[in-house]
Amino acid sequence: MNTTLLISRDEFLAHWQGHRTLTRHTLERFPEQDLFTYSIGGMRPFADLIKEILSIAVPGLEGIVHHKTEGYSHDLNLNSKAELLAEWDKQTEQVNELFKQIPDERFHEDFNLFGEYNFPIYQNLLYFVDNEIHHRAQGYVYLRSLGIEPPFFWDR
Amino acid sequence: MNTTLLISRDEFLAHWQGHRTLTRHTLERFPEQDLFTYSIGGMRPFADLIKEILSIAVPGLEGIVHHKTEGYSHDLNLNSKAELLAEWDKQTEQVNELFKQIPDERFHEDFNLFGEYNFPIYQNLLYFVDNEIHHRAQGYVYLRSLGIEPPFFWDR
Repeated sequence: MNTTLLISRDEFLAHWQGHRTLTRHTLERFPEQDLFTYSIGGMRPFADLIKEILSIAVPGLEGIVHHKTEGYSHDLNLNSKAELLAEWDKQTEQVNELFKQIPDERFHEDFNLFGEYNFPIYQNLLYFVDNEIHHRAQGYVYLRSLGIEPPFFWDR
Repeated sequence: MNTTLLISRDEFLAHWQGHRTLTRHTLERFPEQDLFTYSIGGMRPFADLIKEILSIAVPGLEGIVHHKTEGYSHDLNLNSKAELLAEWDKQTEQVNELFKQIPDERFHEDFNLFGEYNFPIYQNLLYFVDNEIHHRAQGYVYLRSLGIEPPFFWDR
């Protein structure tokens, strides 16, 4: 087992916040109406995907930091693009604050995230980012299909 | 600057190969014809996205290991689902072999990937995975729009 460092905690946080910047830009591109109604193949509209991301990032970190294993709810009361963007920006600060409260030694300890996902904390953190990239990419297809250019993938 | 380890090299490789397994399952779900022709909003068919991933992973690792900065070509001569799957499986082994040839001390050194992307090697490696998640998610939308259930996101 080679445990040489590949990504440090500060590098991971910068990586995550870079992705969060790109997801915010993707959200900005959506016309208000399409954000809440447009979908393909029976999938959720992009507003619902953003709410899922918002209901995982900060609530997940709060669970980890405070050892709480309550479930999540994706049904957030956010009903306009402006409200989604405001909540996004609020979480940007909270992510920084909460992340730094995770003690170094906990990253490789198991934690039962939301009372359902019992994995080492570093894997839970990778999941937050993977899930965001996955849903944002769905948003890219919605935008293209609406004739709107998505942000450049490097735009973080 | 807190440089505590969040992800080790072995953890990263396992994470990447887990994603590669899920992408393979996504590829398997596509009907042969749709794989090469179906698209939404002027985007590339899923076969082309798979070729992009194949033209980045092993060629990128070879560049890193052998200090080569030649450009990439996404135009691979793979013309059926069976050929794509065979190349995918071949690369699965090559990824393991090449990855272990990267010396520990190089992960935080800059490398000019494909002569274009001059970043620390750990960032190039994260990009390989991010880009795969991004394009695979497009495939999920294509599948849903074709009435086909994509693999479960945890299926790695």
